[in-house]
Amino acid sequence: MKAIAVHRGETTPRVVDVPRPTPNVGEVLVRTLRVGIDGTDHEVIEGNHGGYPAGADRQILGHEAVGVVEDPGDSAFAEGDLVVPTVRRPPGDSNPYFERGEPDMAPDGMYVERGIAGADGYMAAYFTSPPEFLVRVPDSFAAFGFLVEPLSNAEKALEHAVSARSAFDWQSESALLGNGPLGLLTVALLQNSFDRVYCLGRRDRPDATIDIIEKLGATYVDSRETPVPAVPDAHEGMDFVFEATGYAKHAFECIDALAPNGVAALLGIPENWTFELDGGRLHREIVLQNKALIGSVNSHVPHFEAAADSLVSFPDWFVDALITDVNPPEQVARAFERRDETIKSVVEFATK
Amino acid sequence: MKAIAVHRGETTPRVVDVPRPTPNVGEVLVRTLRVGIDGTDHEVIEGNHGGYPAGADRQILGHEAVGVVEDPGDSAFAEGDLVVPTVRRPPGDSNPYFERGEPDMAPDGMYVERGIAGADGYMAAYFTSPPEFLVRVPDSFAAFGFLVEPLSNAEKALEHAVSARSAFDWQSESALLGNGPLGLLTVALLQNSFDRVYCLGRRDRPDATIDIIEKLGATYVDSRETPVPAVPDAHEGMDFVFEATGYAKHAFECIDALAPNGVAALLGIPENWTFELDGGRLHREIVLQNKALIGSVNSHVPHFEAAADSLVSFPDWFVDALITDVNPPEQVARAFERRDETIKSVVEFATK
Repeated sequence: MKAIAVHRGETTPRVVDVPRPTPNVGEVLVRTLRVGIDGTDHEVIEGNHGGYPAGADRQILGHEAVGVVEDPGDSAFAEGDLVVPTVRRPPGDSNPYFERGEPDMAPDGMYVERGIAGADGYMAAYFTSPPEFLVRVPDSFAAFGFLVEPLSNAEKALEHAVSARSAFDWQSESALLGNGPLGLLTVALLQNSFDRVYCLGRRDRPDATIDIIEKLGATYVDSRETPVPAVPDAHEGMDFVFEATGYAKHAFECIDALAPNGVAALLGIPENWTFELDGGRLHREIVLQNKALIGSVNSHVPHFEAAADSLVSFPDWFVDALITDVNPPEQVARAFERRDETIKSVVEFATK
Repeated sequence: MKAIAVHRGETTPRVVDVPRPTPNVGEVLVRTLRVGIDGTDHEVIEGNHGGYPAGADRQILGHEAVGVVEDPGDSAFAEGDLVVPTVRRPPGDSNPYFERGEPDMAPDGMYVERGIAGADGYMAAYFTSPPEFLVRVPDSFAAFGFLVEPLSNAEKALEHAVSARSAFDWQSESALLGNGPLGLLTVALLQNSFDRVYCLGRRDRPDATIDIIEKLGATYVDSRETPVPAVPDAHEGMDFVFEATGYAKHAFECIDALAPNGVAALLGIPENWTFELDGGRLHREIVLQNKALIGSVNSHVPHFEAAADSLVSFPDWFVDALITDVNPPEQVARAFERRDETIKSVVEFATK
């Protein structure tokens, strides 16, 4: 079957022909429909994040997938069910994080991540998985169900942020985030719970991303004119900041963007970068204004289920506008190309 | 009556003679027993924190008090009740933070703080207060009830930290904190909920503070040998860090001290201080290990009530060992002197 993989010593993914996987006892065989591409894939390809499966000289990419159950084995799934796989798996034996259903909270060494770290991903015509790592989604999700995985990360970050403000009566009205594909998904999500959502970018009108932001009812903020720490003066202090770009300074700049009692969720993964900052002032600001910073990585099954529910609530036009590039596996180079007009690029292995 | 105040242009508190306050309608008159001194008092005296009451050229100090109701007015208190006052008051009119009972979450400008910012404190033979800002404590608290206020700040910080970890099954076993008076109170508090508590200091044995730490069952860590980021290698990663020193770098160093999924509560109030750090690495560490930083200032009535309950649970010897200096108001200079052997210094206006 066709798969898209990155090989040791290379920084460009290629189509490879690999044997169709045989499900182990208890596993489900899934026929892949679509697999989304995000910044993590580019980091994996460039060797900046994750790692090859043990002993392998190539890794099949892809962690945002939707597929159809081809062989349910002895699971509760039925042939033809539409499913989305989660990302983390136990590294050999299980461990308490997986046993509690919280693999997203497992520390280094207690998990592998399919398509990212130590395990092959879903960018192949078929994949197998234990059934507990597959989430059933509605049949209508065939074209966009791969968005459940990225959105599940936002669901987790939001859940943890809201929890961090649960000891008092949090007045959560305003939110700030970036305009990447995960940012746009999260703009749509936050429209359900925040009164005013601001989305930062570096774009000139006319621009399809700005159109999406405004059509969702959010406010576009040009970060070239209004950098993160200037947002409160230009607009208002933010009750919630969702930082998924991985720009290292944002973790600290967002302290100034927050309103009193605000919380910032950090999801991006920066490289090392040493710089100067007024740590005394930032530390004091966190304390005197009861601010919080929450790191959040990965997600677990209930976050996938919440993401599927949220996707149903999004306006119909939204996912069509978001998915700008649908490529067959043979057009791998084009699928991974970073063009200005690309919002979300996917590889399509089959249609339902 | 006697009071201890700091005057504009001075950095040494003095005893002053001021009129006994007359309760406004609805207020309670309290005869002061003891008032504790902490680092915030020194910052106020030095002009680094807080500020004088509007139009005043002096401020009565003191925010950690215990007293006896002398005139309950039409409140539900009875003459002779032992009470501890909270610190924040509305700046003139009330506002939603006070109406919700959460003055600790009010932003700048929405509160004054008695003895700290914009209002006279409790370091006087008598003080008045609306009854809703007085917390009844057991009669046995006459000598140490002033500890309810500092401990209430730890109760709040712990409550917010635990809330920030409530979205998953947090394995909270280890905690790290400093060895100042608030640190020692919090060591006693954390003995109720953490298996292993580590207390950092720069002390040579024999030392009374180290004795208290070890008698409470915690582990003393010499920070000259084991600075904050080195604690995980020397001991273990910390599920909870309680940082109340206000040393600006700690806000960032504690990210490395935390175990995966750990949370640091920041309570100290540093001055501006610009320094270099590897912000990329720290940002990445917060994200990939699901770590959290929570700022926490002040406390509200339920935190005072929780602190009173906790004080009852502490071993009998503990508060005696903590309170090393009891001074009449005339010995104000000695009360505010910072001697090596001082742990907690108090000004005693009367005994019950």
